[in-house]
Amino acid sequence: MSLGQVFLSEVVGTAILIVLGVGVVANVLLPKNGGFGGGPLMINIGWGFAVFSGVFAAYKSGAHLNPAVTLGMWASGADTYAKGVDITAASTLTYVAAQFVGGFIGAVVVWMAYKKQFDEHEDAPTNVFSTSATVRSPFWNVMTEVVGTFVLVFTILVFAKTPSQAGPLNVAFLVVAIGVSLGGPTGYAINPARDLAPRLAHFLLPIPNKDDSNWSYAWVPVVGPVIGGLIAGFAANLYIG
Amino acid sequence: MSLGQVFLSEVVGTAILIVLGVGVVANVLLPKNGGFGGGPLMINIGWGFAVFSGVFAAYKSGAHLNPAVTLGMWASGADTYAKGVDITAASTLTYVAAQFVGGFIGAVVVWMAYKKQFDEHEDAPTNVFSTSATVRSPFWNVMTEVVGTFVLVFTILVFAKTPSQAGPLNVAFLVVAIGVSLGGPTGYAINPARDLAPRLAHFLLPIPNKDDSNWSYAWVPVVGPVIGGLIAGFAANLYIG
Amino acid sequence: MSLGQVFLSEVVGTAILIVLGVGVVANVLLPKNGGFGGGPLMINIGWGFAVFSGVFAAYKSGAHLNPAVTLGMWASGADTYAKGVDITAASTLTYVAAQFVGGFIGAVVVWMAYKKQFDEHEDAPTNVFSTSATVRSPFWNVMTEVVGTFVLVFTILVFAKTPSQAGPLNVAFLVVAIGVSLGGPTGYAINPARDLAPRLAHFLLPIPNKDDSNWSYAWVPVVGPVIGGLIAGFAANLYIG
Amino acid sequence: MSLGQVFLSEVVGTAILIVLGVGVVANVLLPKNGGFGGGPLMINIGWGFAVFSGVFAAYKSGAHLNPAVTLGMWASGADTYAKGVDITAASTLTYVAAQFVGGFIGAVVVWMAYKKQFDEHEDAPTNVFSTSATVRSPFWNVMTEVVGTFVLVFTILVFAKTPSQAGPLNVAFLVVAIGVSLGGPTGYAINPARDLAPRLAHFLLPIPNKDDSNWSYAWVPVVGPVIGGLIAGFAANLYIG
Repeated sequence: MSLGQVFLSEVVGTAILIVLGVGVVANVLLPKNGGFGGGPLMINIGWGFAVFSGVFAAYKSGAHLNPAVTLGMWASGADTYAKGVDITAASTLTYVAAQFVGGFIGAVVVWMAYKKQFDEHEDAPTNVFSTSATVRSPFWNVMTEVVGTFVLVFTILVFAKTPSQAGPLNVAFLVVAIGVSLGGPTGYAINPARDLAPRLAHFLLPIPNKDDSNWSYAWVPVVGPVIGGLIAGFAANLYIG
Repeated sequence: MSLGQVFLSEVVGTAILIVLGVGVVANVLLPKNGGFGGGPLMINIGWGFAVFSGVFAAYKSGAHLNPAVTLGMWASGADTYAKGVDITAASTLTYVAAQFVGGFIGAVVVWMAYKKQFDEHEDAPTNVFSTSATVRSPFWNVMTEVVGTFVLVFTILVFAKTPSQAGPLNVAFLVVAIGVSLGGPTGYAINPARDLAPRLAHFLLPIPNKDDSNWSYAWVPVVGPVIGGLIAGFAANLYIG
Repeated sequence: MSLGQVFLSEVVGTAILIVLGVGVVANVLLPKNGGFGGGPLMINIGWGFAVFSGVFAAYKSGAHLNPAVTLGMWASGADTYAKGVDITAASTLTYVAAQFVGGFIGAVVVWMAYKKQFDEHEDAPTNVFSTSATVRSPFWNVMTEVVGTFVLVFTILVFAKTPSQAGPLNVAFLVVAIGVSLGGPTGYAINPARDLAPRLAHFLLPIPNKDDSNWSYAWVPVVGPVIGGLIAGFAANLYIG
Repeated sequence: MSLGQVFLSEVVGTAILIVLGVGVVANVLLPKNGGFGGGPLMINIGWGFAVFSGVFAAYKSGAHLNPAVTLGMWASGADTYAKGVDITAASTLTYVAAQFVGGFIGAVVVWMAYKKQFDEHEDAPTNVFSTSATVRSPFWNVMTEVVGTFVLVFTILVFAKTPSQAGPLNVAFLVVAIGVSLGGPTGYAINPARDLAPRLAHFLLPIPNKDDSNWSYAWVPVVGPVIGGLIAGFAANLYIG
């Protein structure tokens, strides 16, 4: 499998992940929507099945869809990123770049689907696109993201060694679990591409009366997931390696 | 498999889809129901499992249940519509006609199951049978339906090439995902038969104090899904073809 | 497999079905419970997974757990009720009797688990044990039960002919679908044993300040499911036979 | 498989179970969380998928994660606790000790992820870590835990004899079922390690303005599950043995 095919596959999978994931937040948070006020469980289920759909769409490249997963696989000492894709600096960069591009495209598509709702929004729409902390505290916010990403990447890496493997449904239910269980304090980015790419889209899109894109928080959902993914990779190597 | 068998299979599957799908809307929106006020997540889960049940019932004909799926398969350059069913003008017409007939039958059965609730309704029951936009805007309403249908048909076509295939459960979870994530602005028809056939049933059924059937909107959930399904078919052909 | 083994298997499976199914209604409807006010989706999911658990527990006897399923299989012209169980008057009676016995035991166990909550109830606890209609109308209430049971039994019989078969998970999701979609007007008994046996338990148990057990309605959730199951059996025979 | 490997596997699996399970309670009960007020269904789904994730992580040791399961397997006359793990006093003790250690670690990790929310809590956080009864009554509280644990362990032991076996998804859905259906009166500990180890963590952790850890109730969610698990083991032996 060429790196070009990897790139396309991860772009498509991450775009579908973000269309459905950011989409459910738009549906629940923006007024004049059928899902307005649907609550946190609806958002958590939406993200879980968003991952499910994205994983199917990117199955050829192993469906990382998340730089923390890619880095976690690297740290775990895996042989390949996917069937026929060696672990090199070039392939690592291809995965991560594609995930950011896919995340940006996905966020733009959500804006297209919810154009009239964004035009009539009342609150700051940054929270539709990106995560934030309910209580700001750099150290503890990073901690929460480290824990959530650790559970994600560690369990996925263990899944891969079990008879039923890390299939789309297993990963979907794991993401629902992490969302309902560890999503409270920081909105469980657990994926730098899921957070930074839509934040950039929010910054660039012509949304009326836009707030700032909460850039001062933007490093937390990048640094936390990177640390959590790396620790998970090393730990999984010790545990199942 | 004869076209008569295809017709029967798609009628039965689409009828079950609509009995359960329109049924959950009736349960949640009409007063004097156990599910009254159950919220958007309940509606989204209801539609997902409605597709699940309908897909099983129509498995012999490939369970399209949706003209946008049939047209998307045509556009994707698939070899057949189902095992033993060639892609011809006659078979295409058979699928689409059966889907509308099944949708109509399903809507009538919902009316039978909820007869007393429809008799005592307070609001306009059109929204039980058919979709509408929370903010009317022809262009953007069509856009939302295009995006939702694209995700549906594209992902189903990709599913079919993966090891776990496009089974009933996979499609059900995809439909839940689209509902919670892209259903806000227009109620995710994403299926011309799901919208137009129940709308006609609403128009014809003897429901007291009926409103008009919102015919001025009826073209949107036909045109949007057709465009989205065709684009998805072409795109899937490029992506996995 | 002897009829004694069939009896034991159906008693155990139906008891687990009713412990979990009636249990979720107790949890949501009776005050001083963690699940109080959990809403209709929680009840519907509870019944679906109750069926899931009961089907596993009674897999040896085919896990009918419902006289409407037994009668539907008879009407469908099936060869056997389960592997090694011929369809005879004696075996039919064994299934149905076991389902009522299991339903009664299950209801008593729920009362044991929720003893203090029943002691302190405020409303009529009949609705915890048995179904009722939100709008009383003998003809239309029976109609609703016929439609719900038809969808249940017809789809199960079709499931059995598909590659993935009528496994516990498929039946569970079907029951969730019927609950959210067709449960509004009459609480979806769709099973005479599920309704009549717990109603008898309510009548006999020492619950303080008990209301009458709504006996005037008790025939509806028996007659409706029997009719629906028989029609589904005949229809499935025509459709897949 | 050595007892050291069993110990590690059960520690990891139980820790993940408790991180996600106690985590969802923190998310829903503690203010300043995205999931605050998410309701009982969200908590029940969280615990179900917590078990799902923990079972995967501990698959090598059979993923008991619960002393009631270990004792139930012993009582059922099983040949081994997992592939290559004989049933002895030493292996039994290894399982149980690991489950308590894992439960303690999991509770500490939840505290790390929700540090700022615990600092700003308003109500008694004991209920985040451990279960309690809505109506205190030693006999009936134990009864509720016996019933819930019986359904858990009996059904898992029966699962193991069916063609689809006691896989992670089956157990997850069973735990959701028990939560929504039998969790009302006592919060369904159904696992001594799930309750006692987090209670000890609450007692030791530096949480401001802490209440007592409700130690007077602590014996109920130990004794009830032990009795329920043992009865389930003996009953399963009679039923499927």
